[in-house]
Amino acid sequence: MRLPLYQRALRQLSIDGIPTVSSAELADAAGVNAAKVRKDLSHLGTYGTPGTGYDVNFLLGQVRRELGLDREWMVVIVGMGNLGHALAHSDRFSNQNFRTIALFDVDPEKIGEDVDGQQIRHISELSTGEFDPRRAIGVIACPAKAAQDACNRLVAVGIGAILNFAPAILTVAPNVLLRQVDFVVELQALAFYVVHPEAVTGPEDSQSGL
Amino acid sequence: MRLPLYQRALRQLSIDGIPTVSSAELADAAGVNAAKVRKDLSHLGTYGTPGTGYDVNFLLGQVRRELGLDREWMVVIVGMGNLGHALAHSDRFSNQNFRTIALFDVDPEKIGEDVDGQQIRHISELSTGEFDPRRAIGVIACPAKAAQDACNRLVAVGIGAILNFAPAILTVAPNVLLRQVDFVVELQALAFYVVHPEAVTGPEDSQSGL
Repeated sequence: MRLPLYQRALRQLSIDGIPTVSSAELADAAGVNAAKVRKDLSHLGTYGTPGTGYDVNFLLGQVRRELGLDREWMVVIVGMGNLGHALAHSDRFSNQNFRTIALFDVDPEKIGEDVDGQQIRHISELSTGEFDPRRAIGVIACPAKAAQDACNRLVAVGIGAILNFAPAILTVAPNVLLRQVDFVVELQALAFYVVHPEAVTGPEDSQSGL
Repeated sequence: MRLPLYQRALRQLSIDGIPTVSSAELADAAGVNAAKVRKDLSHLGTYGTPGTGYDVNFLLGQVRRELGLDREWMVVIVGMGNLGHALAHSDRFSNQNFRTIALFDVDPEKIGEDVDGQQIRHISELSTGEFDPRRAIGVIACPAKAAQDACNRLVAVGIGAILNFAPAILTVAPNVLLRQVDFVVELQALAFYVVHPEAVTGPEDSQSGL
């Protein structure tokens, strides 16, 4: 999944007022090899102009549409410890069409706390009707032992896309998209490449989520 | 990089007292398809016993050695906001041979704060001599604008493996391993698959860092 990396690089080029970019420059900025950039962008039906490259803003619009970022996504966070707070405070989410609309926990000390205008509520209050679940992404940032229950509750209200930060393998129906980020897995991958430098084949090995 | 997923699954099987596992069961537990499991494990020189499968503890030892987890890794965190605290508090790190040994920030309000027995220090105090940098992993959890400086300081003391959580593309020498986790990239990947369900080809698409 390299499109988010192009999106991030193109967005910065656009902010910097750069009008055009070559595939080699985009590859550098995104941390992906140039042949893959050309292949991915040709799948978008985009070929660039020989000698000039790609129009940054046009390509950015194409990539954002392909990523579904031409609409707003609502983010529901379950688990408001340090990680949940880090995610809820991220103004990068709102800059990128992800709007945090609900925060949940089970800890009585956290319920009612205001986080940037959102009150933390008890997970039992998660219910249908307050948002369109087809435009929502559930984020699980609670301890591992509570993660499957959190996941089940998100799925029960119709959310079909879940980002899990808890170190637990979750079970979901085949129609639910589940993506996991495990910090220990990331550290282990680095340790592996330190021990086996010969296994590093390109910049993709050092980028997560590809 | 699927070995960390096998390690996590095998570790749980071992804790649960399960003596043997088939490639299909390991595939399920790790969220990877069974053919890939067999291929990856054959690279370790491990074939299992027909009808019985793999010896869980033997295979776990092999995978951990391959991952470099037969030694201890030291973790140095730069940026002690919510995310840095979430990482520093993770007792999963120490359970997995990753020991947090130093915490840094630049905010005078944070310097001196005790986090599980470690004091947060000013980044300017990061220096050679207090640990073996070849066994250390640097973690960048500071804002994007400070990330390149944090990275340079980690590299300057000899750290060759860095996990970057800041939403910035960092520049490092070719001999430095750099791995990035960007929460917005993860959300965008999920949004992409919601919009393009036909693009989901297997469980790997929904696992990060593969």
